[in-house]
Amino acid sequence: MKLTVIKIGGNVIDNQEFCTQFLQDFSEIPAPKILIHGGGKIATQMAEKLGIETVMVDGRRITDKAMLDVVTMVYGGLVNKNLVAKLQSFGTNAIGLTGADGGVIRSIKRPVKTVDYGFVGDIEAVDSTQIAGMLKQGLTPVCAPLTFDKDGNMLNTNADTQAQAVATAMAKEYEVNLVYCFEKKGVLSDPEDDDSVISELKPADYEAHKASGAIYKGMIPKLDNAFKALEEGVAQVTICHAGEVKQAVKEGISGTRLTLS
Amino acid sequence: MKLTVIKIGGNVIDNQEFCTQFLQDFSEIPAPKILIHGGGKIATQMAEKLGIETVMVDGRRITDKAMLDVVTMVYGGLVNKNLVAKLQSFGTNAIGLTGADGGVIRSIKRPVKTVDYGFVGDIEAVDSTQIAGMLKQGLTPVCAPLTFDKDGNMLNTNADTQAQAVATAMAKEYEVNLVYCFEKKGVLSDPEDDDSVISELKPADYEAHKASGAIYKGMIPKLDNAFKALEEGVAQVTICHAGEVKQAVKEGISGTRLTLS
Repeated sequence: MKLTVIKIGGNVIDNQEFCTQFLQDFSEIPAPKILIHGGGKIATQMAEKLGIETVMVDGRRITDKAMLDVVTMVYGGLVNKNLVAKLQSFGTNAIGLTGADGGVIRSIKRPVKTVDYGFVGDIEAVDSTQIAGMLKQGLTPVCAPLTFDKDGNMLNTNADTQAQAVATAMAKEYEVNLVYCFEKKGVLSDPEDDDSVISELKPADYEAHKASGAIYKGMIPKLDNAFKALEEGVAQVTICHAGEVKQAVKEGISGTRLTLS
Repeated sequence: MKLTVIKIGGNVIDNQEFCTQFLQDFSEIPAPKILIHGGGKIATQMAEKLGIETVMVDGRRITDKAMLDVVTMVYGGLVNKNLVAKLQSFGTNAIGLTGADGGVIRSIKRPVKTVDYGFVGDIEAVDSTQIAGMLKQGLTPVCAPLTFDKDGNMLNTNADTQAQAVATAMAKEYEVNLVYCFEKKGVLSDPEDDDSVISELKPADYEAHKASGAIYKGMIPKLDNAFKALEEGVAQVTICHAGEVKQAVKEGISGTRLTLS
């Protein structure tokens, strides 16, 4: 059976009008499906209002206890519940989940090596049976980028990684189509040219584009996650613009399609 | 089949040590069970930090858009997810829900009569089939005092009323034991004497205690909800101290037991 797993980033969430359009498009994609969302700027803005400093290392947020409370509130509450309520109004029976809910995604607090990321979780286990049970009840999970550990702590978790982990776990039972939506039309061969979309990307091309500097910064961990999903049994992985999610899912003709060979 | 529905108020949530003890006790109560929680002082404190004024009328919070965002964050995110993660660590497979999640509790924005309560929901429908489906999957729903409307809005909702509505809806399929936990040992015949617990309260006694002034203020809507649940098919309703929840559920010997005759 087919399952669509879609990840949206903060850029979709931060633009209310665009987000509503995305959710309407998402609602038209046939179930079973799962939505995984990032955080967006709201957590940073909320932290600022509360006088909590945001510290980023290599584009990753350092999550001390005060920041953990902020992301738990903002990602797990404000963002997640508003997405769920909007989806309900479009006829999608959404259910908001953090990893703690139903114990679906358990992680461990990242060990301190050179950087102490604080309350950040590295995913250990995804309960695909529990998630499949929800899908079979007609529900559409909407996952916030938060997980939990055995000791009862919430942990901040990267949404791209979470999408990969969920898609991979579900691939045991489903033919999974994983779509990473972001603000570009796909992976670009020329970062200066928004139309230079690579329609098909193989590992060898990926290495070449990294070496030339065409693929850089935040695209690298995203693509590492995307290729990992393919290697671990996900049937199809696409990276496309959030505004083209329907085309990407229904026709597979949008953005960049990843292939292993 | 038996089902236990337990409501805890803000006083449990506000005291972290006591809350942990309560969650441990709750974990020892046999499933199926549902936990419904109030908000506590955190929303008011958070609103204050964010420069949002809290306005109460007759003990009820006026919820403008800014306050709705605060309660959605705090109740649906911070409070709910920390309860869920803690319960997971005690071996209870909890799943945090607002009314929007799975569409379990739908409401309508309260019509403006003399007071405009803002984004406050009056419950219209509880999807007992969806909730029963979760219970049958081995999950323990943990409900935040938030619902949603057909137009995709989140709505602030009184937790006592939500407990009554959920218990009543589930009574179609289960023999429901509803327990309201709060900071007193039960309903008191003398509000000055904490040991004057009424062990059994009938509607006629309730009227007499209201007339004498022994039962007043916030106890009145709580008891109105509690009696409504009994009238509408809930098998057993108890009001007790949160520290005595195990005794109340297992032996029915704690606090005040409500009866219709």
